[in-house]
Amino acid sequence: MQNIGTKHSTHTKKYTITCLAAIAWKKNSLSLEKVEVEPPKAGEVRIKMTSTGICGSDDHTIKGIITVKYPFIPGHEGAGIVESTGEGVSSVQPGDKVLTLPVPQCRECSACLHPKGNFCEKQDLLPSSGLMLDGTSRFTCKGEKIYHCFRTSTFTEYTVVPEISVVKIDAAAPMDKICIMSCEVPTGYGAAVHSAQVTPGSTCVVFGLGGIGSAIVMGCKASGASRIIGVDINEEKFPRAKALGVTDVLNPSNLKKPVQEVVKEMTGIGVDFAFEAIGLTETMVAAWDSCNLSHGVCIITGVSAPNLQFSLSGQTVFTGRTLKGACLGDYKTKDCFPQLVTAYLQNKINIDPLITHQLPFDQLHKAFEVYHAGKTIRCVLLF
Amino acid sequence: MQNIGTKHSTHTKKYTITCLAAIAWKKNSLSLEKVEVEPPKAGEVRIKMTSTGICGSDDHTIKGIITVKYPFIPGHEGAGIVESTGEGVSSVQPGDKVLTLPVPQCRECSACLHPKGNFCEKQDLLPSSGLMLDGTSRFTCKGEKIYHCFRTSTFTEYTVVPEISVVKIDAAAPMDKICIMSCEVPTGYGAAVHSAQVTPGSTCVVFGLGGIGSAIVMGCKASGASRIIGVDINEEKFPRAKALGVTDVLNPSNLKKPVQEVVKEMTGIGVDFAFEAIGLTETMVAAWDSCNLSHGVCIITGVSAPNLQFSLSGQTVFTGRTLKGACLGDYKTKDCFPQLVTAYLQNKINIDPLITHQLPFDQLHKAFEVYHAGKTIRCVLLF
Repeated sequence: MQNIGTKHSTHTKKYTITCLAAIAWKKNSLSLEKVEVEPPKAGEVRIKMTSTGICGSDDHTIKGIITVKYPFIPGHEGAGIVESTGEGVSSVQPGDKVLTLPVPQCRECSACLHPKGNFCEKQDLLPSSGLMLDGTSRFTCKGEKIYHCFRTSTFTEYTVVPEISVVKIDAAAPMDKICIMSCEVPTGYGAAVHSAQVTPGSTCVVFGLGGIGSAIVMGCKASGASRIIGVDINEEKFPRAKALGVTDVLNPSNLKKPVQEVVKEMTGIGVDFAFEAIGLTETMVAAWDSCNLSHGVCIITGVSAPNLQFSLSGQTVFTGRTLKGACLGDYKTKDCFPQLVTAYLQNKINIDPLITHQLPFDQLHKAFEVYHAGKTIRCVLLF
Repeated sequence: MQNIGTKHSTHTKKYTITCLAAIAWKKNSLSLEKVEVEPPKAGEVRIKMTSTGICGSDDHTIKGIITVKYPFIPGHEGAGIVESTGEGVSSVQPGDKVLTLPVPQCRECSACLHPKGNFCEKQDLLPSSGLMLDGTSRFTCKGEKIYHCFRTSTFTEYTVVPEISVVKIDAAAPMDKICIMSCEVPTGYGAAVHSAQVTPGSTCVVFGLGGIGSAIVMGCKASGASRIIGVDINEEKFPRAKALGVTDVLNPSNLKKPVQEVVKEMTGIGVDFAFEAIGLTETMVAAWDSCNLSHGVCIITGVSAPNLQFSLSGQTVFTGRTLKGACLGDYKTKDCFPQLVTAYLQNKINIDPLITHQLPFDQLHKAFEVYHAGKTIRCVLLF
């Protein structure tokens, strides 16, 4: 038996914290609540959040497009300070600045042991149990068990995550911005520079000019792409996308033929690199069909609703194109995210233009409003 | 005006040759005929064939699964001796041993100029015009124009091909075997060692244990794969496949659940590399779903019937898998095929086990019988 409130070691504060958190009680229903956050168990870390981004995947979990268990605390793109640690935790300690990891790195599974794998078998995204590794939750509200999301749940003043889902970052990191280094930057920028390895002088098309798509555009530009075609049905996003590096914009709603045909005509032979950053099966097919038949590379970062399929021609697949899914830029999260943070601090990557809005956490609903209106690249909530 | 039969240069014999060739007059109708083969025009090469393999794609063209124009002379996996050359041809001369190239290498188009591209824009496979680069044919039979196939048409004692579709090989090459170096070996062996870059200790599954699949198995074994699962509905192929390196065999007809589920169970986490060597959309999906979600690589070498689609889950694509089409092992044909021949002559690749049957050209129908019965890896026709 453990007594709540009793210190067992210098790293451990065994009391429950009551704090503000956002709970999705059911689909499309998000409210701010007082939540009890239990102390971390062995191998777990409790974090005082400092900032969290609003990512498309958060919206998808709240809408049920990504399957989760209700009621749950959403959020996965987080930065914070370690408040306390459970028994056996050695990679972080109280006071450390950390990022939450939407996909962990356990260093033991087939994905972690493979030189190129990063979709750790201990992830809780696909499928999602909504529970910690021991099958229980650390959150309760009004006496009810509240589920976790991706074992990160960052829309809360305090969260508890497994040690494999958190990583220490440079103490100089600006905590009001750096949260986007835990999803948007690796997912987008990493898809271009690491997953696709966009080459100098190449042609690219990016489907979706939201947060991830914008980070992809930055990565394409940083890699020396000569032409970057941006595709979105919301033309409000075009000026910002152009500022980031997009050279041509297309609004499929205004085209008389399928967008992939227009991209083929614009480039003559299809693009070298195509990116899907929406999560629609139609745009996955459009990205694939925009590619050069011989050597085109199509990177899918989006996640569609469950049970949706996208169809490719069985006769033209053999000609050489590559279709690749890319989660978090194929980076091994615990190894690589701190390096991305350091690269930012050394002015090697400039993530600042990706953050267009910052709002206090209790203005969560307003943040989702500007997100849904397509007015943001990334809105960051500050605690 | 050019006079047939007049020599214009030492490289040119301007007369028509009458010889034996196989003509597919319509779908599923193949007959041996006396055919007139015109002399090569500028930039073309006339070849006296010495051997040609019977590849699944030949069967697909005869059946109309790959769209071609009738009547035509099939065949693309050929070896022969240059008989004469048209004006301006410089890379081969009469007497040279050569391979025909199912996909040319023009060295000028986007695919040829790209470091990784090999599906030359001057290919005549998808779609097929059935004509030489100038839009005409070199074959007539009973006064009727006969179409070419892939601009190779090797089921004939003499053929005419563009210079970009032929390559000189080592004079020591055994001409009764080396034809398979123009398709089967690069398509299969190359898919494993070059396209997928199979790694030592990895797990592989190969769908289809015919000629291409057998060459894939050889490539996986040569790359050090620790487990190679072979899948076919014809169990007659299993002993040969095991002799080449297959460690486990599966007959989907005898399984109570989808073969991809069985492969997942056998490996726990899915294979590192999956290969489709049949051309069925069902096996393309099975290969994809057999892969490790994080880092699995699925190589499609098969070509399905036109207008067939295969469907992938839009929710699970992002986890990291790669789907790649591979034509002729992604080798630049004119650059690389002679090197493969030399590697064979140096005993670095042993292609001999891939040839199970050799028959005289006029026993073409018998050769197709043994092919259709699944009794061959490769049957080579000798002229």
